[in-house]
Amino acid sequence: MDADKAIGIAADIDTDLAERLRFVLEIDRLKSVLRQTMLADGSRQENSAEHSWHLAMTALVLAPFADEPVDLERVVKILLVHDIVEIDAGDVFIYDTEARAAVAEAEQEAADRIFGMLPEPQGSDLRSAWDEYEARETPEAKFAYSCDRLQPLMLNLAIGGGSWNRHGITADQVKKINGGIALGLTRVWEVADAILDASVADGSLAPPPS
Amino acid sequence: MDADKAIGIAADIDTDLAERLRFVLEIDRLKSVLRQTMLADGSRQENSAEHSWHLAMTALVLAPFADEPVDLERVVKILLVHDIVEIDAGDVFIYDTEARAAVAEAEQEAADRIFGMLPEPQGSDLRSAWDEYEARETPEAKFAYSCDRLQPLMLNLAIGGGSWNRHGITADQVKKINGGIALGLTRVWEVADAILDASVADGSLAPPPS
Repeated sequence: MDADKAIGIAADIDTDLAERLRFVLEIDRLKSVLRQTMLADGSRQENSAEHSWHLAMTALVLAPFADEPVDLERVVKILLVHDIVEIDAGDVFIYDTEARAAVAEAEQEAADRIFGMLPEPQGSDLRSAWDEYEARETPEAKFAYSCDRLQPLMLNLAIGGGSWNRHGITADQVKKINGGIALGLTRVWEVADAILDASVADGSLAPPPS
Repeated sequence: MDADKAIGIAADIDTDLAERLRFVLEIDRLKSVLRQTMLADGSRQENSAEHSWHLAMTALVLAPFADEPVDLERVVKILLVHDIVEIDAGDVFIYDTEARAAVAEAEQEAADRIFGMLPEPQGSDLRSAWDEYEARETPEAKFAYSCDRLQPLMLNLAIGGGSWNRHGITADQVKKINGGIALGLTRVWEVADAILDASVADGSLAPPPS
């Protein structure tokens, strides 16, 4: 038995269900997409599937700090799917702005392919959550984005710099990118900003180049 | 800068927020809890954090097949937190029934400690989602449980037996445990059951001992 044969048996009984099961197997690949961020104990790089779980949990516990009222079910759905395109397009380090621009088209194609595996209206529903995240316009997308900026910042802080120091990222860059936390979580950014200042003061984050 | 210092700075500004941030860092440890199930490509064991993400996604795409109407937001919350106690209590192979009984008390203590890190009513809210899952009484908990049985079955099928063959698990045991899929997803169990029969027929799953 392999995946194709199993899905084939499912399809003989219920085509719609078989398509959903194939999607479930396909997205397993997100567990093999590695990010630049290390786990909080520094043991290894984080992958995009566990990252997505961590963001959904972050959203649940930080919801009381959201700047605007948010539909938390929508926020969680957005966060669960927000990185799925990386199965095809890969994870691009957020501080590499050139690579990020170059990957945009590949991400659109990935969204077409992966969400397109699902029967309608399910495929369009999850795709719309991904599109919503990319547009950063709704309170839900802004809050989700803030969580996506905060979580790696916390992990980097936990190991005294992490991917920042490894890649020679300085405080001004960190603040520019992670200032995005203020998009939906102003109070949380206030706190994060103070921690970043203290990180520069204690030498664990490089100051802006003079 | 380390995690304690960063949380200390946060606590000087906002105690409630600092407690939430400490919780976010604490649950990062779920990424290091390994399960018996291998990824669909057989490359490594799955961890409980990425497993939780995968279950939440499974719930989103299989919701139309739920036997009873479910509050999907609640189902997803249940699935996001359902394994968090493993940070303290570890993951126990589901086919090891003795070990599963022995770990129950440790899991309760873990729930007290981990959800207890959060300010109220947040801590009680997430704890109630975990309690609800353990009780398997509500439509949401049953549906969540069905997803939790289905996903490893799919991964095992994808690599032609996986943890079943490694541990000498036979078809009757697989059907007994995974029959739990029928708790909330009768139609899906019908399909899975047919796939398991075909797996015995093609030799990728051991038949019941005669």
